Amino acid sequence: MSLLTVGSVAFDAIETPFGKTDKIIGGAGTYIALSASYFTADQKIVSVVGEDFPQETLNDLKSRGISVEGIQIKKGEKTFFWAGKYHNDMNSRDTLVTELNVLEKFDPIIPESYQDVDFLMLGNLAPSVQRQVIERLKTRPKLIAMDTMNFWMDIAWNDLMETIKLVDILIINDEEARQMSKEYSIAKAAKKIMAMGPKYLIIKKGEHGALLFGPDSIFFAPALPLEEVFDPTGAGDTFAGGFIGYIARTGDISFENMKRAVIAGSAMASYCVEKFGTERLMNLSEDEITARIQKFRSLVNYQLEHVI
Amino acid sequence: MSLLTVGSVAFDAIETPFGKTDKIIGGAGTYIALSASYFTADQKIVSVVGEDFPQETLNDLKSRGISVEGIQIKKGEKTFFWAGKYHNDMNSRDTLVTELNVLEKFDPIIPESYQDVDFLMLGNLAPSVQRQVIERLKTRPKLIAMDTMNFWMDIAWNDLMETIKLVDILIINDEEARQMSKEYSIAKAAKKIMAMGPKYLIIKKGEHGALLFGPDSIFFAPALPLEEVFDPTGAGDTFAGGFIGYIARTGDISFENMKRAVIAGSAMASYCVEKFGTERLMNLSEDEITARIQKFRSLVNYQLEHVI
Repeated sequence: MSLLTVGSVAFDAIETPFGKTDKIIGGAGTYIALSASYFTADQKIVSVVGEDFPQETLNDLKSRGISVEGIQIKKGEKTFFWAGKYHNDMNSRDTLVTELNVLEKFDPIIPESYQDVDFLMLGNLAPSVQRQVIERLKTRPKLIAMDTMNFWMDIAWNDLMETIKLVDILIINDEEARQMSKEYSIAKAAKKIMAMGPKYLIIKKGEHGALLFGPDSIFFAPALPLEEVFDPTGAGDTFAGGFIGYIARTGDISFENMKRAVIAGSAMASYCVEKFGTERLMNLSEDEITARIQKFRSLVNYQLEHVI
Repeated sequence: MSLLTVGSVAFDAIETPFGKTDKIIGGAGTYIALSASYFTADQKIVSVVGEDFPQETLNDLKSRGISVEGIQIKKGEKTFFWAGKYHNDMNSRDTLVTELNVLEKFDPIIPESYQDVDFLMLGNLAPSVQRQVIERLKTRPKLIAMDTMNFWMDIAWNDLMETIKLVDILIINDEEARQMSKEYSIAKAAKKIMAMGPKYLIIKKGEHGALLFGPDSIFFAPALPLEEVFDPTGAGDTFAGGFIGYIARTGDISFENMKRAVIAGSAMASYCVEKFGTERLMNLSEDEITARIQKFRSLVNYQLEHVI
């Protein structure tokens, strides 16, 4: 089934303890779309870039079945740019540069051919922009998923609260969940956040895996114990892309199927961090993805016996 | 099969954001033995207390099938005492008081009736004392498990290195694994530590679950997303007790069975933190334990389908 992805298509410059990149292709929308493209060939993206953005990247997205009709190219303007440096533990980073550029006044125009999509993934953007997308779709998608970040909690809390009321599933990390709920306990945080609107909630815990909360169930997906995390940039977006891509592929929004989607997202994220930027996401094979999903399975798998 | 537990039987005074205790019963040996007693009725303990230690607690341990013949009672001396205060996040604590007392010159005497035990659990103690216990057993147990802590890495590194060579499985937390290996990545840390001797390694990650490493396999057990952690004291020892108790009950030291033992340990630890000190461990029912183990199972359980 069809998937609409909304999110930044941008430039990043990344420094990790393992090396440094010049400007490379990044952006939440890019990571989500690339990751989802392994699961669905019917994907559309809404975004905005400047005239400095390479046409070949847009062509590459197209070759992966992603319609780029909804990517506006702003003449005389520059693409969103982010530069950051990871600390030695790879769990925290400093933002060195944020140039909003074309994102500053992003008006998310939905091409007519994008109407009636089955699923919607709202990558991290201003909550007012995310809301506009929902409002501009004539038919409500079967499932609306949304990412956000601390920044919007700080500067656009009311907007954020209005927007999350409209989505079915929120996908955030543990730090964001704590800030959003003002609760340290993740279980308590989840309860509070779900009371704000979304029926489902995924809390990503990085190297500690991810939790999926439903109205009355919890599912936990581990992370692989990786020896090296080369570059964590985009791992969260790649997770979201794998999740929603899997949902779009199967067309099944049951909690049972969301569990499998979480594993698919985790597998994709575990590949993403192996190389800089989107590099590893560019040429995965189906066999590699299947093998990784199997690895996640064996990590937690055991035969139950009568214990006491 | 029979289990020998070695570890402190002591007094604790605990302060958490939820409240404060006077001197209550604590000690690694106590938590391990109580936890293991739900799985095996053939347990022996080696420890030392002062004459201030209540006879009724020793009687209580006896009533749980734990032989206390190996608990030396030192006339005119005082029991080991620890006081600590947990921070608001419950993940870190300050030690307020450590009075070694009888532990200062602990000579672990093994009663003749304790010889030929099947399994040995060495709770956190000076590594030289842990080694003495191994050396004083005439027959090597089928599996020797050992806990340790940062403190011994700081002041008794060489002793520690000699002792871990003699054990089959080391059970430590993530912070300890990082300090021991000087590696931040848990996967790398595990490799280095296993090269120091133990064939198996469990790394406990508190609210993030636990990893079991074997010669060529990894198993991950989640932690339950608890709304309240009332008091984390003894959770690690309770985990170890549940693990080794399950091994003793089943007599099976295969990696497959160790996985189940890790789940048993995780279930016991999840109960331990619900109340102050050993309180919750004092009166669990078999039904409660079975239900909790089932809960761990459903947390990670999903039906695999063909994904891509």
